[in-house]
Amino acid sequence: MTISVIHGVNLSHLGQREPEIYGSETLENINRGLQSTFPDVTFHFFQSDIEGELVQAIWKCRGLIHQTPTEGRDKTRPSTGIILNPGAFTHTSVAIRDAVAGVAAIKIPTVEVHLSNTQAREPFRRESLIAPVCLGQIQGFGAHGYHLAVQALLKITN
Amino acid sequence: MTISVIHGVNLSHLGQREPEIYGSETLENINRGLQSTFPDVTFHFFQSDIEGELVQAIWKCRGLIHQTPTEGRDKTRPSTGIILNPGAFTHTSVAIRDAVAGVAAIKIPTVEVHLSNTQAREPFRRESLIAPVCLGQIQGFGAHGYHLAVQALLKITN
Amino acid sequence: MTISVIHGVNLSHLGQREPEIYGSETLENINRGLQSTFPDVTFHFFQSDIEGELVQAIWKCRGLIHQTPTEGRDKTRPSTGIILNPGAFTHTSVAIRDAVAGVAAIKIPTVEVHLSNTQAREPFRRESLIAPVCLGQIQGFGAHGYHLAVQALLKITN
Amino acid sequence: MTISVIHGVNLSHLGQREPEIYGSETLENINRGLQSTFPDVTFHFFQSDIEGELVQAIWKCRGLIHQTPTEGRDKTRPSTGIILNPGAFTHTSVAIRDAVAGVAAIKIPTVEVHLSNTQAREPFRRESLIAPVCLGQIQGFGAHGYHLAVQALLKITN
Amino acid sequence: MTISVIHGVNLSHLGQREPEIYGSETLENINRGLQSTFPDVTFHFFQSDIEGELVQAIWKCRGLIHQTPTEGRDKTRPSTGIILNPGAFTHTSVAIRDAVAGVAAIKIPTVEVHLSNTQAREPFRRESLIAPVCLGQIQGFGAHGYHLAVQALLKITN
Amino acid sequence: MTISVIHGVNLSHLGQREPEIYGSETLENINRGLQSTFPDVTFHFFQSDIEGELVQAIWKCRGLIHQTPTEGRDKTRPSTGIILNPGAFTHTSVAIRDAVAGVAAIKIPTVEVHLSNTQAREPFRRESLIAPVCLGQIQGFGAHGYHLAVQALLKITN
Amino acid sequence: MTISVIHGVNLSHLGQREPEIYGSETLENINRGLQSTFPDVTFHFFQSDIEGELVQAIWKCRGLIHQTPTEGRDKTRPSTGIILNPGAFTHTSVAIRDAVAGVAAIKIPTVEVHLSNTQAREPFRRESLIAPVCLGQIQGFGAHGYHLAVQALLKITN
Amino acid sequence: MTISVIHGVNLSHLGQREPEIYGSETLENINRGLQSTFPDVTFHFFQSDIEGELVQAIWKCRGLIHQTPTEGRDKTRPSTGIILNPGAFTHTSVAIRDAVAGVAAIKIPTVEVHLSNTQAREPFRRESLIAPVCLGQIQGFGAHGYHLAVQALLKITN
Amino acid sequence: MTISVIHGVNLSHLGQREPEIYGSETLENINRGLQSTFPDVTFHFFQSDIEGELVQAIWKCRGLIHQTPTEGRDKTRPSTGIILNPGAFTHTSVAIRDAVAGVAAIKIPTVEVHLSNTQAREPFRRESLIAPVCLGQIQGFGAHGYHLAVQALLKITN
Amino acid sequence: MTISVIHGVNLSHLGQREPEIYGSETLENINRGLQSTFPDVTFHFFQSDIEGELVQAIWKCRGLIHQTPTEGRDKTRPSTGIILNPGAFTHTSVAIRDAVAGVAAIKIPTVEVHLSNTQAREPFRRESLIAPVCLGQIQGFGAHGYHLAVQALLKITN
Amino acid sequence: MTISVIHGVNLSHLGQREPEIYGSETLENINRGLQSTFPDVTFHFFQSDIEGELVQAIWKCRGLIHQTPTEGRDKTRPSTGIILNPGAFTHTSVAIRDAVAGVAAIKIPTVEVHLSNTQAREPFRRESLIAPVCLGQIQGFGAHGYHLAVQALLKITN
Amino acid sequence: MTISVIHGVNLSHLGQREPEIYGSETLENINRGLQSTFPDVTFHFFQSDIEGELVQAIWKCRGLIHQTPTEGRDKTRPSTGIILNPGAFTHTSVAIRDAVAGVAAIKIPTVEVHLSNTQAREPFRRESLIAPVCLGQIQGFGAHGYHLAVQALLKITN
Repeated sequence: MTISVIHGVNLSHLGQREPEIYGSETLENINRGLQSTFPDVTFHFFQSDIEGELVQAIWKCRGLIHQTPTEGRDKTRPSTGIILNPGAFTHTSVAIRDAVAGVAAIKIPTVEVHLSNTQAREPFRRESLIAPVCLGQIQGFGAHGYHLAVQALLKITN
Repeated sequence: MTISVIHGVNLSHLGQREPEIYGSETLENINRGLQSTFPDVTFHFFQSDIEGELVQAIWKCRGLIHQTPTEGRDKTRPSTGIILNPGAFTHTSVAIRDAVAGVAAIKIPTVEVHLSNTQAREPFRRESLIAPVCLGQIQGFGAHGYHLAVQALLKITN
Repeated sequence: MTISVIHGVNLSHLGQREPEIYGSETLENINRGLQSTFPDVTFHFFQSDIEGELVQAIWKCRGLIHQTPTEGRDKTRPSTGIILNPGAFTHTSVAIRDAVAGVAAIKIPTVEVHLSNTQAREPFRRESLIAPVCLGQIQGFGAHGYHLAVQALLKITN
Repeated sequence: MTISVIHGVNLSHLGQREPEIYGSETLENINRGLQSTFPDVTFHFFQSDIEGELVQAIWKCRGLIHQTPTEGRDKTRPSTGIILNPGAFTHTSVAIRDAVAGVAAIKIPTVEVHLSNTQAREPFRRESLIAPVCLGQIQGFGAHGYHLAVQALLKITN
Repeated sequence: MTISVIHGVNLSHLGQREPEIYGSETLENINRGLQSTFPDVTFHFFQSDIEGELVQAIWKCRGLIHQTPTEGRDKTRPSTGIILNPGAFTHTSVAIRDAVAGVAAIKIPTVEVHLSNTQAREPFRRESLIAPVCLGQIQGFGAHGYHLAVQALLKITN
Repeated sequence: MTISVIHGVNLSHLGQREPEIYGSETLENINRGLQSTFPDVTFHFFQSDIEGELVQAIWKCRGLIHQTPTEGRDKTRPSTGIILNPGAFTHTSVAIRDAVAGVAAIKIPTVEVHLSNTQAREPFRRESLIAPVCLGQIQGFGAHGYHLAVQALLKITN
Repeated sequence: MTISVIHGVNLSHLGQREPEIYGSETLENINRGLQSTFPDVTFHFFQSDIEGELVQAIWKCRGLIHQTPTEGRDKTRPSTGIILNPGAFTHTSVAIRDAVAGVAAIKIPTVEVHLSNTQAREPFRRESLIAPVCLGQIQGFGAHGYHLAVQALLKITN
Repeated sequence: MTISVIHGVNLSHLGQREPEIYGSETLENINRGLQSTFPDVTFHFFQSDIEGELVQAIWKCRGLIHQTPTEGRDKTRPSTGIILNPGAFTHTSVAIRDAVAGVAAIKIPTVEVHLSNTQAREPFRRESLIAPVCLGQIQGFGAHGYHLAVQALLKITN
Repeated sequence: MTISVIHGVNLSHLGQREPEIYGSETLENINRGLQSTFPDVTFHFFQSDIEGELVQAIWKCRGLIHQTPTEGRDKTRPSTGIILNPGAFTHTSVAIRDAVAGVAAIKIPTVEVHLSNTQAREPFRRESLIAPVCLGQIQGFGAHGYHLAVQALLKITN
Repeated sequence: MTISVIHGVNLSHLGQREPEIYGSETLENINRGLQSTFPDVTFHFFQSDIEGELVQAIWKCRGLIHQTPTEGRDKTRPSTGIILNPGAFTHTSVAIRDAVAGVAAIKIPTVEVHLSNTQAREPFRRESLIAPVCLGQIQGFGAHGYHLAVQALLKITN
Repeated sequence: MTISVIHGVNLSHLGQREPEIYGSETLENINRGLQSTFPDVTFHFFQSDIEGELVQAIWKCRGLIHQTPTEGRDKTRPSTGIILNPGAFTHTSVAIRDAVAGVAAIKIPTVEVHLSNTQAREPFRRESLIAPVCLGQIQGFGAHGYHLAVQALLKITN
Repeated sequence: MTISVIHGVNLSHLGQREPEIYGSETLENINRGLQSTFPDVTFHFFQSDIEGELVQAIWKCRGLIHQTPTEGRDKTRPSTGIILNPGAFTHTSVAIRDAVAGVAAIKIPTVEVHLSNTQAREPFRRESLIAPVCLGQIQGFGAHGYHLAVQALLKITN
């Protein structure tokens, strides 16, 4: 089983970024924790602050795009599923939505994860442009939300 | 650890109700599955189609209300947490929101769960009146969402 | 042919309730008039002021729920159709809508009836949350609207 | 008893026009069916795709307008009532609304009829500009809705 | 000086149409009154219930369209100005707005007149689609409003 | 003089429920305080979390509904007035509004009371569906608001 | 016949204020022109930039307020009518609306006048808070609009 | 105890102003009635039609502004509380809101009073810009509302 | 190949109508230019200012309506496609939309054409009620847009 | 160089008014600080709580209005520019906007200044009715914002 | 003649991406097809998923930016026109709009192209932020839309 | 003192880009002018058209991110403050807002600067998503706005 974990904008600063909202764990720790909790899963981790690079990362999950030599990883199968925390792009990116819909059309499901409970924050954070094309959402449980998302994908895709 | 699982309106018909949306498992099976997966957790299950009874069920989690003899269960401690699927009341009930906020004020967290992905359905289902006072939400994973919610509560309250 | 006639909130006071809007006939008279006009139809009449009980009454039309001894009626077939006057719940109840949609999915059609012309009253009465999942609506003809609804069901289901 | 049946825009193509929505009966058949079901009623049938002609047809129901020789019909009494299916003008015509209000002021009631359930279709079809000045509405029952409207007028005006 | 007086939908019924709103004078009387009050003005009167015919009447004020033999009037100069009471089309007709804008571009001004004070009626009557391309508006003074409009045009165009 | 005091959803938990918003007095104390302050008034107190039961309680104020034996109180006159704190139903219940309007039509006035100042809280609390059919509102004065409401009713109905 | 002409905010600068919108005539000239055109009418002219003073000026038209010695005019009868150009207060002043409604209730009609066509300007100028309680409006004809308003009042009140 | 009673725009005409809405008592009588009912309270009465003067009157309640000789009253302590009926400024004045918030910050509470039930009138009267910074509101009880407000302040500030 | 070119309201005045927006070519020239550019296509040209006549023209493309003798053209096959410039009806006509949807259901596609770029004009021109049921849109290229539309239809239907 | 500094409603209480928002400096100090920082600039300071007086102060900057003897200042040139802090009128005053636009038309620019960052406060403070006719805005820098505004005017007008 | 063809986000996956919406042709084929159909046109093709790179590509059309050596193309003249399919950025990018407006100001026109008919899809796709600054739009014709756009540019710029 | 000056999308084209809106000075000149005016300040200038790179540039102001060798600058202290002109991202980027909020939480203030007065342009430019988390805004003064922003930061942070 292969799962792509895609972190969006501003998320490389976790641990230092408003920890009372986003928690004190770093992104590296979150990723490492996932791998150690689910040793049988092959994870692909990606983070970018650039909307278009997130779009590309989602498409790469199809296995249809040639690898650049600088990446050097070998990925020839599609991902079993995607765990996506788009960060602020959640509320503004139709582009990412379209990419998620694109891979959903070939049966690669996406789970939207948020560290904080976006429903309990500013009004503009209450709408996700991306959620309607996802399989489901998990939010409000901090870094543990990623673990739940893996379990959801394991369950759904088995 | 004690967890209250509160199912709202129209949910006693699971299995027979539009299974392509809500799945084919009955509510009884869902409850039984939770107990067998988490044998160390004391579950209190409740279902009602009546908004006010759901309000009362939420307050009962405080352990502050006397038990009626017909229930015959002995509950003297507060719940560790609540798993709440309000059904259609998600979108219309300020009353349930106020009850959830009331128990949240004394540190009983609530996780909102939906079987379907409400963000992928009719526009009026996109707003939850209750989510802003919950700890978090999990939706779109069918009956498995309840399992994830238990795990979230176990993680958060430990 | 079996038809369920379900009257919603505030409707037990017909005759005494603002008769210039709702007419001077009592609910009992309306029900009795239906039975005498359509002697070949088996009517099941129900009224409640409680949203959740109306939800339950709708589900009972499936014949899938066991009868409580206090009701003592024998209903083992599904209703041919439902005539539903939700009263004020028309404008606020997603719960009733979901129940109507649930029975519609197994081919039990619902006709929404209103005594008054809701389109000619306060703006908030112009939207029905329930109408989109009904077969059709009849409104503005007082108690006679129920008669028309029976005829509509007789026609459609034959 | 004299009833004017006024069909609005696009309705002359019934039978051929998207029959899964509007049914397979032609307008001529609908009209003929009404006459044969209610032999004691004098019907005046009218159809036009032109908003202003529908306005004129409504005013003619007052018996106050001289007949043009090309029509050659003799109408000297006001209609007992009007059955109006405005078609798409339902959602855009204040002009027809004003005409309906004009005849309502001299006690000629109008019943709005739709073949389909407009509440179950596109959002813009949910608002009727005309309904607030009608006696009532009947929709969703196909051609049979016209029969119900006749019965409603017979009942109300007796 | 030549003035076109264009009356829109439902206005041929003045005198009989809800006189408490629109007054008890007939359209013919209004027109005749204008002519007798302003004997030096050449008036062209027109009424139609059909939006497109009102559009055509407005364009005719340019003197650019050939006369049909059935009209038999000789109009070879543009109107000095137009007095337009669009009736209900005020609130729904972009087509008439475009025609008014078209003649305004060649310096034929239009004055919008209403018998009633549209600002004191239903909310949907508060917006005029046509007013923004008119020279000005006069409303609320019954038939006298047309007299004021003539005076306005006489003043402005001298 | 007879006054019905009707408390809505979540109000049986006063004293324990977010006391910084709702105060630290229990509902029982509030009721007892009213009786001792106004010894000449016959109070009928009622609380329910169920919308439909509040509707029924309002209608009971007419004296038109037979008493159930379990209540055992003797009420044969209409209430002089109603003091109603609907709780969260303030913002969502057309049903209660309709009941209040129903008794208002037979001259039983209702005063809406809130413990907190709803205008100073979340935006969705700023609209009361019920206020437009009440005699007046009093809010923001904690439990003392009920005392003011009694005085208002005493003044208005004398 | 006595007519009060009340000019609102920013109008004392006419002639110098954006003459391409408001014309090049001064307020004094406008007032003088009215008097010379209608020598038989007793005009009371008033201008203020202060909303509350305009409110007071409107109430003074009732003849119910004692004259201050500094004004030295003798006004013991109510005005026959008011011509009101509220300027920018048109769009923001409920206070002036209430005063206009107050005098309308004792049969002193108000005509709202604007120099420019407010419908052809910024969107926020399209709504008049005051118009719904006026007799009528005249706008877009520059200073001549005041003359038309006098004629309207002469006509209506005779 | 010192209470400032501040009456806003159009309120000096009470008794004569639309008495079916505002009652037939004059402002002077209302003020006098308050003093005679509460002889131990020192009242400061103020009325103005000018928004900015109401702002100043509110700030004066702090005792921080020097008295002008024309007023000749001696006020060196802050008010215990303010009773404010802003009239139409309720719906339009952020300036008064800011002044009320300013004195609230130094613990001078304000009670908003309305003679009529603003919730039962035009839609634009349903929003108060000022209420969110007040202690509470009382409305719909005519002049008696001021008496209730005094009692509320006496209760709250003791 | 047969293509129907249907021009809507105000379009018979092209060349003279605000040429800076709509160009200086007449409608006749546009039609003639199409025929000479595409000599192998049989064009049917139609223009009307009347919404209902445009509806009828669209339905005629089905070949299902008998020809009136005054037209004298022989059309027994359905059109290959329709090129429709509805003019101002673009923004107001559900009736035309329904007709376009009606012929689309039997596989006659419609291309919406506008001379000007409606997205660059007044806000109300930004919404087309008709576009959602068309095959596509072309706008902003003046008369050349019709040529592009023909090419689009030739391409799509081959 | 002459600069008019116009302070609006509630600003005479600076220093004492909610200092955590508006700072602890008094208005007099702010004015004095400006003069000492920019000794070569002739400042005219004005404060009023009355919208209409602010309008008048803006117009006075044109030098077109005669000085009243009580002011005794000699101002015969127009201001080089205006620094305007309208206070709460920012969000409600079209009147002040019109005055600012009036002087802008004769090349007297206005800079809008706010002590606090209005974008970070209540939603209704986010819109300025006046900003669209100003040269620019400066906000969020406390009293120092006035100094920046002087510098901006010095730069722009040189 | 030189035409820049700029493809936006998610468009490099054409052929594989939801072909029932976007067609089965790859982007490379579309580009190649354009070149072979219009051999006399010099095309510059560009695709990016990154909004800012699309902005840069648009500015490059001015010929004002130096070429980087890695591109190695020689472009010293401005493009004759731009064909832009922004993909999802159509609905969210003010940045691209500003770039298009920037080149439009120096007479480089842009044609917006969409493969699908965006008006027939989700509501949020109905608004283009970019269209108002384009020359025109073509949508709904699949890959052929690019060909039409070239023809439009050839026609307009000759 | 160290100040980061971050220019957003489309700003590298200043001087050539619509100079009547944005001025004729180039970005390089603006930067150079800042340095020469404030020789004691260490400026870090950055421009990007890519939203994510602007996010990164903001985070770099914390001094928490390692420098890439290609940049070669030595920055080990946090910026004293940020001057940010987001360009079009002002209206669409929650991502930049979150980054600004992130550095604000560790006391690095941001001043939003715009060359033009965004309040005087298209409606969609009136809302800044970023302003609510900034210290303040300066707009409308062209390139001089950056100088004012430096002065504001110097003042605030001393």
